[in-house]
Amino acid sequence: MTPRSTSPKGKRATILDVAAASGVSRQTVTRAMNDMPGISPETRERVQRIASELGYSPSRFAKGLVQGAKVSIGLAIPDLTNPYFPAFASSVVEAATGRGWNVVVDDYGHGTGSAVDAAARLAPQVDALIGYLAPHADEAQALMGRRPVVALDSPDAGTAGRISFDYRHAARLALARLAARGCTNVAFLDSDQGGPAGSRSAAAAAVAEEAGMQLSRFKAEPSAAAAKAAVALLADRADPVDGILAFNDLMAAGALKALQASGKAVPGDCAVIGMDGIPLGELLTPELTTLALDLRAVGRAAVGLLEGLLSGSLAEGGTEAHLILRHELVLRQSA
Amino acid sequence: MTPRSTSPKGKRATILDVAAASGVSRQTVTRAMNDMPGISPETRERVQRIASELGYSPSRFAKGLVQGAKVSIGLAIPDLTNPYFPAFASSVVEAATGRGWNVVVDDYGHGTGSAVDAAARLAPQVDALIGYLAPHADEAQALMGRRPVVALDSPDAGTAGRISFDYRHAARLALARLAARGCTNVAFLDSDQGGPAGSRSAAAAAVAEEAGMQLSRFKAEPSAAAAKAAVALLADRADPVDGILAFNDLMAAGALKALQASGKAVPGDCAVIGMDGIPLGELLTPELTTLALDLRAVGRAAVGLLEGLLSGSLAEGGTEAHLILRHELVLRQSA
Repeated sequence: MTPRSTSPKGKRATILDVAAASGVSRQTVTRAMNDMPGISPETRERVQRIASELGYSPSRFAKGLVQGAKVSIGLAIPDLTNPYFPAFASSVVEAATGRGWNVVVDDYGHGTGSAVDAAARLAPQVDALIGYLAPHADEAQALMGRRPVVALDSPDAGTAGRISFDYRHAARLALARLAARGCTNVAFLDSDQGGPAGSRSAAAAAVAEEAGMQLSRFKAEPSAAAAKAAVALLADRADPVDGILAFNDLMAAGALKALQASGKAVPGDCAVIGMDGIPLGELLTPELTTLALDLRAVGRAAVGLLEGLLSGSLAEGGTEAHLILRHELVLRQSA
Repeated sequence: MTPRSTSPKGKRATILDVAAASGVSRQTVTRAMNDMPGISPETRERVQRIASELGYSPSRFAKGLVQGAKVSIGLAIPDLTNPYFPAFASSVVEAATGRGWNVVVDDYGHGTGSAVDAAARLAPQVDALIGYLAPHADEAQALMGRRPVVALDSPDAGTAGRISFDYRHAARLALARLAARGCTNVAFLDSDQGGPAGSRSAAAAAVAEEAGMQLSRFKAEPSAAAAKAAVALLADRADPVDGILAFNDLMAAGALKALQASGKAVPGDCAVIGMDGIPLGELLTPELTTLALDLRAVGRAAVGLLEGLLSGSLAEGGTEAHLILRHELVLRQSA
């Protein structure tokens, strides 16, 4: 992590800390720190002194917000060809464009790229970063220095902001649905990639144990084709699964194709639940029951967090800068 | 259009024109124009004089390429939620990142946005622009001035570069397939948006007339949901269609759902062919026969064109800077 100045919570002081210590409004601190008119020279000097004592200095991004300079944010995503990510990117671009900001998108999934490469490419040119950065979120924050990073799906990251997901809640909704359908041999179709994969399957395992449900786990690359191949092997076992909870909708789509190819009825022989809520799910046959996020809300939330961090109204790494979002179970035909 | 200097073809002189007129290599012109070492003062002076006579001046982007400055390109696309566009964007990002360039993505489909808005947002910050810009490609080039624009699917645009598609070839492949299946009442499911929509349906109409095939045309918004609603109405007609060629794969997916809901067998009662070749097609039931582009090749081609235009090895607006790509018919289950 990047070194931070001292403040009561060990976090960098925010504009609000300076305002409180000076007994003035946030707007007055902004005026003082940016040598703007509208306040007395005495107030300006006092606020600047207190800011210096607290170790607060406005980032050039907060100055940019004040002075109307164009804010440029980086968006690091692992794979534009999984429809979840462009849907998320689209929502970030929409929310940022609405504020007059630019978005530089880096799709780091090509070749041997990782989130660190994306952060290294973006750091020289952006004022802030939003991204799916696991397991490299802390390195990305270090590369960005004092400029804020909002990490998605990295609940333990030391980034300025975080958006994570309540996977236990999601797993409870899905496993309760499968149990209600009478499924007794349920499998979690997991991604074989690191990072968020672990948190989804771990949540499902914990919830299954609480509920006394049997839950096996098998892995594949997080693509429809790889999931199809993995489920095709599974469908031929002597002890076939009767319910599948998939890591994401794309893997669930592959599972549906494999079950169909092996003559299994969905949901009759095997129920399937996806995760993400991408529009694809409605076009499949049978239509996909899924744990859905409001994707536009996720993008709006990420951009809103950045705005708060850039303006200083949210403290870096504070609980208010950590949003935990919940999935909703959208019932269609597959479970 | 932006004013251009005079040259024999009425186009701005390129580095190649200067090289030819000076009797030196392109590398020598580059050295002369950028005051680089490795050539004699006399040659430098002569090349600079000839360049001035021809009205050639290297763009700052060509200088950037020479001096190793980071090239930043803008990518304007109408809708990240249609899987075609993120797949295309991903291929552009991959090709550009491979050259060490940055990509700023602008998704202008939100609200009342148009390609002009995207070009206006991108112009202050990028060295070149790639985009689906119809019908505003010329305005986008004017906003970019002398910096190159590569317009996709705008065959008549006055942009520096163009990538267009041979829709007559595509229509021939699709209609021949439907005719071979015995379809006699074929409909083109068109997009109700302007621009490229017209060229696809016009090509299909021309090919049908050549072949003496009956081809009706009906329109919907270019989304799966709107296409589903439109085809649901169509399926109930007294004179039902027995073949559908859709404007894009997303609309074809909606058509499949509508036919399924009305109890029609695909391809038995009605064959369906999509256009684009997005991965979604393989996940549908039945799997979608489609006119496919090699999406990664499209992105590579666009970035390659820009590189040629930026370096001066391709003349702006010349025939070498106009690529015409062809679709391939990928046979699956739906036709």
